[in-house]
Amino acid sequence: MTIKLGLLGFGTVASGIPFLLEENGDKITAAAKDQIEISKVLVKDEEEKTRLLAAGNDYHFVTDIDDIISDSEIDIVIELMGRIEPAKTFITKALKAGKHVVSANKDLIASHGKELISLAQDKGVAFYYEAAVAGGIPILRTMANSLTSDKVTRILGVLNGTSNFMLTKMVDEGWSYEDALVTAQKLGYAESDPTNDVEGIDAAYKAVILSQFGFGMTIGLEDVTHKGISTISTADVAVAQQLGYVIKLVGAIEETPSGLFAEVSPSFVPKTHPLASVNGVMNAVFVESIGIGQSMYYGPGAGQKPTATSVVADIVRIARHLNDKTIGKPFNEFSREIKLSDLSDVKSRYYFSIETPDKKGQLLQLAEIFSSEDISFEQVLQQKAQGERASVVIITHEMSKTALANVTAKLSEVAEFKVLNTFKVLGE
Amino acid sequence: MTIKLGLLGFGTVASGIPFLLEENGDKITAAAKDQIEISKVLVKDEEEKTRLLAAGNDYHFVTDIDDIISDSEIDIVIELMGRIEPAKTFITKALKAGKHVVSANKDLIASHGKELISLAQDKGVAFYYEAAVAGGIPILRTMANSLTSDKVTRILGVLNGTSNFMLTKMVDEGWSYEDALVTAQKLGYAESDPTNDVEGIDAAYKAVILSQFGFGMTIGLEDVTHKGISTISTADVAVAQQLGYVIKLVGAIEETPSGLFAEVSPSFVPKTHPLASVNGVMNAVFVESIGIGQSMYYGPGAGQKPTATSVVADIVRIARHLNDKTIGKPFNEFSREIKLSDLSDVKSRYYFSIETPDKKGQLLQLAEIFSSEDISFEQVLQQKAQGERASVVIITHEMSKTALANVTAKLSEVAEFKVLNTFKVLGE
Repeated sequence: MTIKLGLLGFGTVASGIPFLLEENGDKITAAAKDQIEISKVLVKDEEEKTRLLAAGNDYHFVTDIDDIISDSEIDIVIELMGRIEPAKTFITKALKAGKHVVSANKDLIASHGKELISLAQDKGVAFYYEAAVAGGIPILRTMANSLTSDKVTRILGVLNGTSNFMLTKMVDEGWSYEDALVTAQKLGYAESDPTNDVEGIDAAYKAVILSQFGFGMTIGLEDVTHKGISTISTADVAVAQQLGYVIKLVGAIEETPSGLFAEVSPSFVPKTHPLASVNGVMNAVFVESIGIGQSMYYGPGAGQKPTATSVVADIVRIARHLNDKTIGKPFNEFSREIKLSDLSDVKSRYYFSIETPDKKGQLLQLAEIFSSEDISFEQVLQQKAQGERASVVIITHEMSKTALANVTAKLSEVAEFKVLNTFKVLGE
Repeated sequence: MTIKLGLLGFGTVASGIPFLLEENGDKITAAAKDQIEISKVLVKDEEEKTRLLAAGNDYHFVTDIDDIISDSEIDIVIELMGRIEPAKTFITKALKAGKHVVSANKDLIASHGKELISLAQDKGVAFYYEAAVAGGIPILRTMANSLTSDKVTRILGVLNGTSNFMLTKMVDEGWSYEDALVTAQKLGYAESDPTNDVEGIDAAYKAVILSQFGFGMTIGLEDVTHKGISTISTADVAVAQQLGYVIKLVGAIEETPSGLFAEVSPSFVPKTHPLASVNGVMNAVFVESIGIGQSMYYGPGAGQKPTATSVVADIVRIARHLNDKTIGKPFNEFSREIKLSDLSDVKSRYYFSIETPDKKGQLLQLAEIFSSEDISFEQVLQQKAQGERASVVIITHEMSKTALANVTAKLSEVAEFKVLNTFKVLGE
């Protein structure tokens, strides 16, 4: 028997699939116990079809989804279109028709995964999406199959290659945010509207999916606080360096006594922490747990071949189940009631960069404000800024999100103080 | 139904199993779809039994393996005794009796895995051993289930926690090998006879198992060249630092055009390479492949809880198959004919540390010897050593193992030259 695939979309990632089927055919066929073949490829319109054929792509291109759904020979539908619609409608159709589905669509899975997953279960078919988080890193299946025995307490992830590329340039080469963005756009890492990447939204989607696998809670995007990298200044980068940190955009999901807390935010990462050396477009997921303790999964977060590798790994698992005539278990079975954390339980050290008038008594007044919220200082750096202004950098001891909100409000009431930035500071 | 375990041995790792079953019981039971229970524990003799009971261990201890083998209620036998015998005999008995087996015994699996695996297949039972390589890192199942779609070209691993702890101390604190060893022994990381750890034998066992999962080749320990860390001097460490490297004991398995080559050797790792920041007793497996490109799996290489986590992950998978009444696939199915590489195909840059008389013309003579083997220099450092001697450090361009053997032989013929050390130099 040959396992037949129907591809939805033929962009960058899709064309990585034939590469693997060709270059690694023996291993893939042996693991799947069957040949895997691309049977039909859905494209947008006749124009795209003509263009792809002219470019030498020798596939059976179709422009109507029903050509794939109604084809009883197609076992697995591979959705690589991205965005919510029409991907959602097409996947729904495929699942309803009893076809297995593989998707790399993190936006869709983070926002509508629940209903698609439950539809797949009703229909007794597989719905896998390893490529949706951290592209080439096999993190989801590893969580589902290996970390089952372990209780995860916190996940820290460098989950967005674009912003990590930019931050690496800002840290290693002293570039400004603006210069880094322009270069990222030139290299094709950032889109012309880079909002999703630089504001932490893309990473927040991934945090939603990681919460399911790591903590069994299907939270929504609105449950993930997110803050991007656009406010990071060269001064912040330099101070971080000086104090032994690098700034990374970190997706953090942790379980506190009261529940789950997830956020994406620029964070000071100690230079000795394994996440600190995750550079350029690479991603990494750092897992803290009661059994293993600390483990990290590192690799490319995007790209044609890495993403296609995750997609094909999903395909091989489904093909194998088809061959063994077993259903296989749902991709993620870990499920608990959603309980979100009280902000008073979410604790961290923080970095404050504050501009003050360059006159006596400012530091004392700052100390009083922080002290009124029971926040103590671990490190303070005071230096002359431009003109009549001074710059005060504070690293606090551990404090809660509640205290952070309170002290931020109090600082904003003092006209003389200008809080330039506040970032989380991770421990070793 | 309750899944009943028979434990062979009740050492450090074994006692990590009840910890996980208790602290993470809900998740484990949900994933296994059954309760998991330690039914019987095999100990050496009545003395050990009395001692363990007195220490408050409330288990059904037995001293005869047949009490476990003949117990039809026991589904899974967990071997945590270590060494070859009697572990091999006991596992064989268990498999023959149709019991599933989980083992953490890398020595056994590297030396006799083949026959045990084939016995398990004949009997239609599972034989899993995730904990055998890199303790808490879920690397084997990840290779078997996720990297199936990918073709691995090279694996680089920091696979021995003891030697990595020692090297970290030598690099970070400037300790000598001897001081590092004494401390490792004091902390219980190194045994009184540290040979297996410091001479790369332990890492070579792991390389054997990684070769099976990564390249489908069941090579023998004798096929893995190994060289330990005992000859590394503080001078080597300092020069490495100066040139932008750290020295790590690296297990390297690569496929060249002519076949597989595996070795464990001290290696210069560029500071920017992800393996360079794997410190202390941590392990990491860095995988190069045609699909993902570069990925790394990092975590504790040993220890009670990490190792027990891998063991329990294996147990959960088996329990789940029992519940689903499916057999599950063999732990590793990737299998190809063994083909070992010609040494002329195995290429790397190398570091040479050579002592010469402190007189004119020495460097020229050295250059001539290397040049006669077509080896060119990337970097040369010459400095005055003690007394009448000088020290020459060379980093070569890429050269083959054959050239390495030839040039080493030629250098040994010149009485004036003393080659202090030769280490592999990895690229970025």
